[in-house]
Amino acid sequence: MSDSDLNISIEPVGIAHTTDEPDVMIIEVDSKFTDALLLAEEQEHLLILYWMHRLNEADRQILQVHPRGDKTKPLRGVFFVHSPMRPNPIGVTRVELLKVEGNRLFVKGLDAFDESPIIDIKSA
Amino acid sequence: MSDSDLNISIEPVGIAHTTDEPDVMIIEVDSKFTDALLLAEEQEHLLILYWMHRLNEADRQILQVHPRGDKTKPLRGVFFVHSPMRPNPIGVTRVELLKVEGNRLFVKGLDAFDESPIIDIKSA
Repeated sequence: MSDSDLNISIEPVGIAHTTDEPDVMIIEVDSKFTDALLLAEEQEHLLILYWMHRLNEADRQILQVHPRGDKTKPLRGVFFVHSPMRPNPIGVTRVELLKVEGNRLFVKGLDAFDESPIIDIKSA
Repeated sequence: MSDSDLNISIEPVGIAHTTDEPDVMIIEVDSKFTDALLLAEEQEHLLILYWMHRLNEADRQILQVHPRGDKTKPLRGVFFVHSPMRPNPIGVTRVELLKVEGNRLFVKGLDAFDESPIIDIKSA
């Protein structure tokens, strides 16, 4: 497997912020990528890819877990559980786009943490 | 935006291979991540994150395109088109898991290219 040596470098396109409303987050897109927001206001739903930045390097080494931490359940590969632990901890969430204010997208349903780096935004 | 300076390093967990069947690809998981495949055979559908490795650095600078390359349509931000061009070209596809043979997952519906690096595998 030659490609296992490949390292991919990703520069976040923005950052997530919590708001006073529990289910609403703001995605602040880096000003460098403002042009990529053209016609954002026409979107109703988006697919957000974000980096689970609270996991550390040790977490990324864990390859098997008990589903939902329930030790009565057999161990399962991290690829097949909803645990955030995985070699490349990227979260993928479909969100509702509530509002666009300049570089800021107000979205509902994003399960990121405050300050999570945003990796990509797609139509959904 | 302090976090725009953050660079995230991703090591692929495997690689995609085309097969003789047009809609079937093999995901060959790196032997380093074999443990993360435990109970793979119980899965029916997977969400595959892969790196669109045929795009080059110049492609990643393009922030607006005409949808489907149709110049009669107004330019749109790359976040809101199905174009692969985007700052971080990660593809997300839901696939059917046909068969597991050791480290190899036979999947239907993956729209990656031959040799595309696989970034993550999730239940779907």
